[in-house]
Amino acid sequence: MTRVTIWYERIQELTDAKVQEAYPQGMAEAIASALRSDDVTVRCLYQQDPNCGITQEILEDTDVLLWWGHVGHNDVPDEIARMVQQEVLKGMGAIFLHSAHHSKPFKLLMGTSCNLTWRENGDTERVWVAKPSHPIARGLGRYIKLEHEETYGEPFDIPEPDVTVFLGGYSGGEVFRSGCCYRRGAGKVFYFQPGHETVPTFYNEDVRTVLRNAVQWAKPEYRVKELECPHVSIPD
Amino acid sequence: MTRVTIWYERIQELTDAKVQEAYPQGMAEAIASALRSDDVTVRCLYQQDPNCGITQEILEDTDVLLWWGHVGHNDVPDEIARMVQQEVLKGMGAIFLHSAHHSKPFKLLMGTSCNLTWRENGDTERVWVAKPSHPIARGLGRYIKLEHEETYGEPFDIPEPDVTVFLGGYSGGEVFRSGCCYRRGAGKVFYFQPGHETVPTFYNEDVRTVLRNAVQWAKPEYRVKELECPHVSIPD
Amino acid sequence: MTRVTIWYERIQELTDAKVQEAYPQGMAEAIASALRSDDVTVRCLYQQDPNCGITQEILEDTDVLLWWGHVGHNDVPDEIARMVQQEVLKGMGAIFLHSAHHSKPFKLLMGTSCNLTWRENGDTERVWVAKPSHPIARGLGRYIKLEHEETYGEPFDIPEPDVTVFLGGYSGGEVFRSGCCYRRGAGKVFYFQPGHETVPTFYNEDVRTVLRNAVQWAKPEYRVKELECPHVSIPD
Amino acid sequence: MTRVTIWYERIQELTDAKVQEAYPQGMAEAIASALRSDDVTVRCLYQQDPNCGITQEILEDTDVLLWWGHVGHNDVPDEIARMVQQEVLKGMGAIFLHSAHHSKPFKLLMGTSCNLTWRENGDTERVWVAKPSHPIARGLGRYIKLEHEETYGEPFDIPEPDVTVFLGGYSGGEVFRSGCCYRRGAGKVFYFQPGHETVPTFYNEDVRTVLRNAVQWAKPEYRVKELECPHVSIPD
Repeated sequence: MTRVTIWYERIQELTDAKVQEAYPQGMAEAIASALRSDDVTVRCLYQQDPNCGITQEILEDTDVLLWWGHVGHNDVPDEIARMVQQEVLKGMGAIFLHSAHHSKPFKLLMGTSCNLTWRENGDTERVWVAKPSHPIARGLGRYIKLEHEETYGEPFDIPEPDVTVFLGGYSGGEVFRSGCCYRRGAGKVFYFQPGHETVPTFYNEDVRTVLRNAVQWAKPEYRVKELECPHVSIPD
Repeated sequence: MTRVTIWYERIQELTDAKVQEAYPQGMAEAIASALRSDDVTVRCLYQQDPNCGITQEILEDTDVLLWWGHVGHNDVPDEIARMVQQEVLKGMGAIFLHSAHHSKPFKLLMGTSCNLTWRENGDTERVWVAKPSHPIARGLGRYIKLEHEETYGEPFDIPEPDVTVFLGGYSGGEVFRSGCCYRRGAGKVFYFQPGHETVPTFYNEDVRTVLRNAVQWAKPEYRVKELECPHVSIPD
Repeated sequence: MTRVTIWYERIQELTDAKVQEAYPQGMAEAIASALRSDDVTVRCLYQQDPNCGITQEILEDTDVLLWWGHVGHNDVPDEIARMVQQEVLKGMGAIFLHSAHHSKPFKLLMGTSCNLTWRENGDTERVWVAKPSHPIARGLGRYIKLEHEETYGEPFDIPEPDVTVFLGGYSGGEVFRSGCCYRRGAGKVFYFQPGHETVPTFYNEDVRTVLRNAVQWAKPEYRVKELECPHVSIPD
Repeated sequence: MTRVTIWYERIQELTDAKVQEAYPQGMAEAIASALRSDDVTVRCLYQQDPNCGITQEILEDTDVLLWWGHVGHNDVPDEIARMVQQEVLKGMGAIFLHSAHHSKPFKLLMGTSCNLTWRENGDTERVWVAKPSHPIARGLGRYIKLEHEETYGEPFDIPEPDVTVFLGGYSGGEVFRSGCCYRRGAGKVFYFQPGHETVPTFYNEDVRTVLRNAVQWAKPEYRVKELECPHVSIPD
């Protein structure tokens, strides 16, 4: 059984008709419906929950955390972001979606600004598979086509990825490293660029395949309770 | 003084009017004219020269080798390719241009097929700067615009680059890792995608800047005469 | 079912009493006995077999190839080495053991000299786990202790590993990157330093655990029949 | 002219006789004396200075920052650590020495716990050159010998380095990635393990060579005033 936790800020969808139209049941449910199965349990947390919904107990009960945030990044307390980062270092998988490039936990894990260039003008995006043999790309064709997505462009200020699985190209001309894998501590981290709030990207079948693949890839086989810096004796 | 050697297959330009039109003085001279200066000497070698122009003496007298090949790849003897590879491992810089992705020395240095997808339909390319702080990107704007280039697309079967300096995007929709840095042995290797034979890419001022920057980046500070696998005594 | 093929040069053990003493049933059988199970079939090939035992059919029928060679490296035909390299690029896993750092297929996959420093004086080695969360390290303690191993030292001329799982330290003082992971094309490659022919390293229980883990890690989920460089149309 | 700033916590040397004996003129001066030259200006900041000595103006006036901290890590305000991190992302070079593996700015840049194993028992260390062609290793032999150093061992919880320049081996048996290079944003980061406070490591001539080399390597050629995430128009 894979235990998935979706963390979603749920701010814009409360008031913005375009977001409500793209995700009539809410974005968290759109993501959850892609993942939920006999082998995968899904729990949703919201920024409006007490303590942003995050407790140490929930993190330890999570195999893979998906994170979508945007306008509320700065309202996530530093301590919550740090708890998430530390749990990844202990082995929890983490998938950061779209505008979560600027979320506090992702920036803590990357160590960089995670800045990019951006534009919202209805560009069509093709998310090209750069590494077809990677398990996150399983079941896809040569590219995922998204009729409309927010445009993200390089330079994307991230550490050079361990594996670049996807590269996005936009009808306006920009390109972007759209699927990036990292190991950080005992945990695996995947950044995936698609998922703008005003378009129904998370209902795209290929995107849903990526989410499912990424959860299985990020699921830990190894997990520690504490991060330690042990004093050691001379080995035998 | 930086000693540059340009290796150019010079096959298509002998017979193909489109190549002659793009490079009336020859492609080697187009590249050379970008590099030649008071501080940089340039020598050109051709596939038609005896032994493809390559001698051990010339390689040792070269700081940075630029390589452009295309239809003649298979006619470069394995032993010549191996000499180039070995000299890179000893410290010589190497810059592989455009269709040299399939040259024997590049494939030897990468260890992969270096396959890609491709199309020749007059696409416009923007070569986006993904790492503006890298010395190879010095002096460029956000992208290099090339009115027409051959389209290269992912997947590009290369080892994950040490640094991805450029990402190309084409008007037809494809994206490509267009500028990739590697260390191999004591040498530095740069792959740069622009430079199709039927368009005057090597006269583009930004491309010429990249060539100059790349030569300075790849120039060795350290060079060995022999690759050794020494038997050693217990250290003191 | 995982299909494992062990390629072993079997030269020294035919004549060298020390090798016969370390591996009375042969080194191939020592490795095979660590891997054979209800879920893993093991086939052994020898350098003395026709065509070194390698056929395209066997490679395609192999999930993971383990390679041990030493004094016979140069007698493996280039074409055989190339067949192995190509099959890795198509997805076959490959594990190179000890002196296979200088085998032709490994050097083809790395693109470097794979030189190192070495000494054979009975040093004790500790193979330290640098990445305990990596699946290849599953089930190990902080280090593997080998009473005697051949000493391999840095510099080890390899591309920077994707993941450095093990670092060896020797009683004589040297250190070495003893467990290195790479992706090359669709295949996974693992280099593992222990396994000198005159000591029974492959009967060490921790080493056997590493071999089993590495086979499961390298086993492909994705495999292609041909490496292709396709001409493509403008995407829809 | 290269502008170097040494940040030193200067806590233990005020009271600990062993530290005073190892560094009679202070550790900051020991480091400074290795770097100061006609081409290099050196400024020293101390944790006891107001605001830990750090101002935005000083950071912008610094090409390369060296950082040595130990018992006072937690007393460096988060905001100071963040200012240092941000300036690295803008292009400032940073060199973290020995116990600065646990300094706040280094952990911010790495994104990991930077935990390791350790022991203080007078081990002899050899710092092996794993990448002799790297500019930081210029002028060194095969290894640096340090009669006594604090023992640091793997696992060292860092992102896989861009380049592993040094690997340390200790007489007690441990091994450690002792010299690690990273790019983070526009800046270069080098971690160097030697430099325990009770032994005169920074007077070792080879260590001083490394410090000088690392400063020249980390010195920025590119620097931005602000980290930006720009909204962009459709490219021309």
